[in-house]
Amino acid sequence: MPVAAQIPLSMLVVFASAKLLAEIFERFGQPGIVGEILAGIIIGPHVLGWMELNDVLRILSDLGVMFLLFHVGLEVRASELLKMGGTAVVVAGAGVAVSFFAGWGASALWGAPRIEGIFTGAAMVATSVGITAQVLSSRRLLHTRAAKVILAAAVVDDILGLLVLALVSSMARGPVRYLDIALTAAIAIAFTWFVATFGTRTVRKVMPHVQGRVSLAEGEFALAMTLLFGLSLLAVYAGIAAIVGAFLAGMALGETVDRRVHELTRGVTELLVPFFLVGIGLRFDLSVFATKTVLALAGTIILVAMASKFAACSLASLKMGRPDAFRVGVGMIPHGEVGMVVAQLGLSLGVMPQSVYGIIVFMSMVTTLAAPPLLKLVFRGIGSPRGVDEEIVRVG
Amino acid sequence: MPVAAQIPLSMLVVFASAKLLAEIFERFGQPGIVGEILAGIIIGPHVLGWMELNDVLRILSDLGVMFLLFHVGLEVRASELLKMGGTAVVVAGAGVAVSFFAGWGASALWGAPRIEGIFTGAAMVATSVGITAQVLSSRRLLHTRAAKVILAAAVVDDILGLLVLALVSSMARGPVRYLDIALTAAIAIAFTWFVATFGTRTVRKVMPHVQGRVSLAEGEFALAMTLLFGLSLLAVYAGIAAIVGAFLAGMALGETVDRRVHELTRGVTELLVPFFLVGIGLRFDLSVFATKTVLALAGTIILVAMASKFAACSLASLKMGRPDAFRVGVGMIPHGEVGMVVAQLGLSLGVMPQSVYGIIVFMSMVTTLAAPPLLKLVFRGIGSPRGVDEEIVRVG
Repeated sequence: MPVAAQIPLSMLVVFASAKLLAEIFERFGQPGIVGEILAGIIIGPHVLGWMELNDVLRILSDLGVMFLLFHVGLEVRASELLKMGGTAVVVAGAGVAVSFFAGWGASALWGAPRIEGIFTGAAMVATSVGITAQVLSSRRLLHTRAAKVILAAAVVDDILGLLVLALVSSMARGPVRYLDIALTAAIAIAFTWFVATFGTRTVRKVMPHVQGRVSLAEGEFALAMTLLFGLSLLAVYAGIAAIVGAFLAGMALGETVDRRVHELTRGVTELLVPFFLVGIGLRFDLSVFATKTVLALAGTIILVAMASKFAACSLASLKMGRPDAFRVGVGMIPHGEVGMVVAQLGLSLGVMPQSVYGIIVFMSMVTTLAAPPLLKLVFRGIGSPRGVDEEIVRVG
Repeated sequence: MPVAAQIPLSMLVVFASAKLLAEIFERFGQPGIVGEILAGIIIGPHVLGWMELNDVLRILSDLGVMFLLFHVGLEVRASELLKMGGTAVVVAGAGVAVSFFAGWGASALWGAPRIEGIFTGAAMVATSVGITAQVLSSRRLLHTRAAKVILAAAVVDDILGLLVLALVSSMARGPVRYLDIALTAAIAIAFTWFVATFGTRTVRKVMPHVQGRVSLAEGEFALAMTLLFGLSLLAVYAGIAAIVGAFLAGMALGETVDRRVHELTRGVTELLVPFFLVGIGLRFDLSVFATKTVLALAGTIILVAMASKFAACSLASLKMGRPDAFRVGVGMIPHGEVGMVVAQLGLSLGVMPQSVYGIIVFMSMVTTLAAPPLLKLVFRGIGSPRGVDEEIVRVG
């Protein structure tokens, strides 16, 4: 193989297989991202062996998750979030706390070391805004009260998840020193709080002045990218993951920046996110499921993950009435990218065995896969008939 | 420096410095791309030493040039090109032939080996569609007859330049065997011809059928990316550069694909092209200009590059009348990215010394820098007054 072929070959195989499987999954009414992860497993070293994680894919995968979180941040409206106020925060807080301790507890009962238990719990904390929003918007359910609470809570949940990620990543970096953890947590929270409040306000004040004065074509996009890379770098220096900075950069810009920046970012995200998702699949080792013990653990984790989120979030939103509470509970079930990032971190730090990593990724895939049919069930009778028609035509 | 910082740090330093210098250049009415290359020189190992070409930058730079050529291909309208027919082809052909032999001749007179002379000539062949189009459109001159001939000729020129690139790259790959060269040329021309004609027609027929049947969000973009990576890979296997495939993929899609794909591609291009331009600067070694001999050679090359293009293209379009012929001649002066790619190839293959590489890049920069004022001169009195007003306001 000529050296010059490495980049186009890697890109073709990964991108095309990701989109092919995403297309097949979408046809069957399932989220495309599950298909993209599956594509990674299929072309990866344990099944077809067409592709392994080379430098090109590693770099594009890291960039992909950075842009994914930036994109999620861009779509978050801090102002709409505030309207949903209390309920959303209670739902998110309950879901995160119960999931974390349920995951840790299940892991401890299984006899795992404490650090592994903490990582397992942390990996079960985050709800996927992306998947939730995608399902609700494709079914035209975004206008419902339950949908708004789900979205707002999912965002709070994401931020809590990112903080948990910051905490566990500092914990895993050596012997557990509580003062250091508290300090790291304080820096992480301070950084997040500072950027989320002061940063957003500053951007909102400064941007309109800058916008008119830049001569560059697409100057606003250039400024947004600079903020993205700058905050990602600062986040790393603050001891937390680059993606936390990327998310905060997105959130700071979300309400200020021109629609054009969203569009251009969308192009980058469309190109790069498949490399992140396929990268997850490429790291996924199916052979860990060979033993009955691991299979049983996988079953337990999946059950705990779904039951804890559903129970905690439904109970926390019970004052909305039982139907809406059930909708919120189901809407919070899908575990997304952030959980996989935690698991990946645990694996690369050597505190999480390959088997548990595989289970976490599998759990994320199963809960994501379960979301569309479950949401269809609890939302039946609501939503525009056109959405329903399309669904029938597409499946049939 | 933490390992996790490498990606955001490289991206921040390269992207921010590129855009800062582009902004400064734009303010002074100069093309931003010259500023971006200069940014690479300034942050590079020979001036400030902040950054060197690491793996992240090398991969992003390769992707950047791939997307740049894809983007140029997308903007080319094969149909409009045909309307300008004869004149454009004669102008482009004359410009390419005269530049090639003038460059080779100058190099030979200087006593360089034959292969170096051929690479020098080849690096002087291509006119930059990007720069030409950018200058003409920002001055609102795209509607003029001369502008249309320039654009059409620049496209033919680009294709001829890519063929020359294919030829010289195969020549440099070992002992020069004429049968092999003929075969390579035949494969390259056949591949280009096949994709440019049959490919475009196929895409035009197949795309509308596919467009309606894809379930995937942004499915058309996914198809475009797959064609881009696929043709880039095939081009490498056909013995020519990946960017030739990228350009052809763009051209095949240009007239068929939805505006949306252009927009999303623009996002990727905006992000990645600075890495290509800064990469050129990072490879640029100013110390080669230390001797008088090299300085004299640089002066000769720049003079030959500008004079040969201007004379050949003006003479070839003389039937349009002298004012328009002068406009066409000046419009074809800027030497762009493809010439730098040839020079880069020559450098990496070891057939072009660092000094000549530096001169070629310098020549591209000088001819690019000369374009806006020269175009202003020959186009004075034409163009919308608004364009002129803006210019005065921005420069003043």
